[in-house]
Amino acid sequence: MIQDKQYLMIPGPTPVPPAVMAAMSRPIIGHRTDEFADMHKRIVERLRIVFQTKNDIFVLTHSGTGGMETAVANAVEPGDKVLSLVTGNFGERFAKIARAYGADVEELQFGWGNCVDLKAVKEKLSANSYKLVLATQNETSTGVINDIAGIGSLVAKTPALFLVDGVSGVGGIEIKMDEWNVDILVTASQKAMMLPPGLAMVAVSPKAWRTVESNASPRFYFSLPAAKKSYEKWNTAYTPGVSLFAGLDAALDMMMTEGMENVYVRHRLLARATRAAAKALGLKLFARDEYASPVITSIESPEGIDGDSIRKVLKKEFGVTFAGGQGILKGKIFRIAHMGFADKMDVIIAVSALEMALARIGHPVELGSGVRAAQQVLLEGDD
Amino acid sequence: MIQDKQYLMIPGPTPVPPAVMAAMSRPIIGHRTDEFADMHKRIVERLRIVFQTKNDIFVLTHSGTGGMETAVANAVEPGDKVLSLVTGNFGERFAKIARAYGADVEELQFGWGNCVDLKAVKEKLSANSYKLVLATQNETSTGVINDIAGIGSLVAKTPALFLVDGVSGVGGIEIKMDEWNVDILVTASQKAMMLPPGLAMVAVSPKAWRTVESNASPRFYFSLPAAKKSYEKWNTAYTPGVSLFAGLDAALDMMMTEGMENVYVRHRLLARATRAAAKALGLKLFARDEYASPVITSIESPEGIDGDSIRKVLKKEFGVTFAGGQGILKGKIFRIAHMGFADKMDVIIAVSALEMALARIGHPVELGSGVRAAQQVLLEGDD
Repeated sequence: MIQDKQYLMIPGPTPVPPAVMAAMSRPIIGHRTDEFADMHKRIVERLRIVFQTKNDIFVLTHSGTGGMETAVANAVEPGDKVLSLVTGNFGERFAKIARAYGADVEELQFGWGNCVDLKAVKEKLSANSYKLVLATQNETSTGVINDIAGIGSLVAKTPALFLVDGVSGVGGIEIKMDEWNVDILVTASQKAMMLPPGLAMVAVSPKAWRTVESNASPRFYFSLPAAKKSYEKWNTAYTPGVSLFAGLDAALDMMMTEGMENVYVRHRLLARATRAAAKALGLKLFARDEYASPVITSIESPEGIDGDSIRKVLKKEFGVTFAGGQGILKGKIFRIAHMGFADKMDVIIAVSALEMALARIGHPVELGSGVRAAQQVLLEGDD
Repeated sequence: MIQDKQYLMIPGPTPVPPAVMAAMSRPIIGHRTDEFADMHKRIVERLRIVFQTKNDIFVLTHSGTGGMETAVANAVEPGDKVLSLVTGNFGERFAKIARAYGADVEELQFGWGNCVDLKAVKEKLSANSYKLVLATQNETSTGVINDIAGIGSLVAKTPALFLVDGVSGVGGIEIKMDEWNVDILVTASQKAMMLPPGLAMVAVSPKAWRTVESNASPRFYFSLPAAKKSYEKWNTAYTPGVSLFAGLDAALDMMMTEGMENVYVRHRLLARATRAAAKALGLKLFARDEYASPVITSIESPEGIDGDSIRKVLKKEFGVTFAGGQGILKGKIFRIAHMGFADKMDVIIAVSALEMALARIGHPVELGSGVRAAQQVLLEGDD
């Protein structure tokens, strides 16, 4: 295996395009400058297109989990009743953060591999009064997307705020923050946004802002009112990751050039091709077609084979890295990200390497049959 | 097609590894410094391992053609009898350069797609007296390698100097300059050496050096005696491409880490996989197995299909660039480079994209069948 030749296919950090790397390699600029303010304004204006919102969007220097904590720290006070819609590891994390801030969290578990069932949400909302409802747009631990529009329309009929973890989805899967009644939307740099880790983006609706302003929980670095004060002058409250901002500026250039609709079509196409390949190889998909993620495909390891042993061969012989299963799914599934800077050939690489790894560990596989199924989908093209 | 996602598979310039890019991004250093001299010495010591020689190796700031001209300008005087062994476009270029310096060049043509026939060379050498014999190690225009060891042993029995164009071969295909009796060996940065274009490397045997010193042809930038004078203090006669030197230093680090024997095995494996795939797809290989290049595979376009139309689909739909045919082969063949920074997955990308492009333009193809043939070779591994 040649040094340096690697194919990273995990759900973040994801590969970074050369144009973004080049932008981040430019000389560091001071953050209290017109140059930074211009860039900051340009970034927010285009993030609004990605988020489909008129709201303020705060670009904060921490990872996605910091973004989720920012949402919670500014909306939760001890004793608040919170409904957390859980479909996997990241749903559980959102609930855990809310609990860390003293919320009285009710976890509505849909089971790992399932999506949020709107009927169950409706029942909960009509029988209880919540201050917040938490949901995950794209549950990377299982490869499932949730119906944010559907949940949003239910929550909007109540006084509750709707907080959405869009960390692994936004930029690769359509979201319409305003139309879908999302009150706080969180995403991060290192997934579909095609950047290294280090930035979170948090958008806040006017309805949420009233709660944020009156919130009495302890917060300093995570304070949205502090962020807002600086944001109004296109500044930041604390030192921003200026090179990551430059990278985000370049990544948004790329996304606007491609067009967001094309970005979404591309991700759906890659997911369909990957899923068709897995089926052709006789492998079981962990998530059902109806709610399968466009940015990550989770596949069950064949009976009697530890998913991590497949991953070891993939990495060692072919330089290809898939993600493993998390928590209760460890060893039972593996996950292929096609998220952000990914195209048709990445699916071919993933599938072809998977075929060879399965053959190498003695699992019966018809070489090329998964690739063929993927090729057929890729040739049919857009959905 | 996502912006920036490109798969360059032409025989130079070839993709540059990130470690080499990073080295070239370091601050520019002055060339009259100890730092440069240390780097220069380190580079030459390791190039000697690649060239398998004890000779001086001059790293010159121009492209491969400049390297070929350097060899000629220092060895040819008007009226010199030169035998040029021609197997394609680059063999013709070597002859053309010799003619530009007034040589009386006899072109021994073996036909595009064939290799040099040693019997014909032997006959020529016994019937004539030449000052120089010119040969191409790897003829990229046709995807053929020539038997440099065999030619060298014939030339060594005569007073002639043996000049070898190793531009597209050295670093990817074994060469033993000293053992194989090569007198001047030329290569360049942008092929198997994994660098951007801009450097040529020219090694000179003691036998050649006597001719070089007494040569009366006009030469200044290409003067090897001028280069030698500076080289003795690990300096250069004129301003060297310092960032390309830094890149070469890093590329040699990579090659030494992988081990040259492994580098050669890797290239042979990629060639065998590519050829097996072409055969499985019912395509005709342009060069025969016995003398097929390990770094580039030339494939005939199917009857009635212009190779350039396949290449257009490949580029537009899949971001994959193959080389076309040159000169008399324009439109008749296409060429897939697996040269330098290339690994198993690059073959899969090339073959899979080729299958899809053929399907797209209506040529009957069993999707995945070429990939399967390549996978089988890749799984069998080293030869």
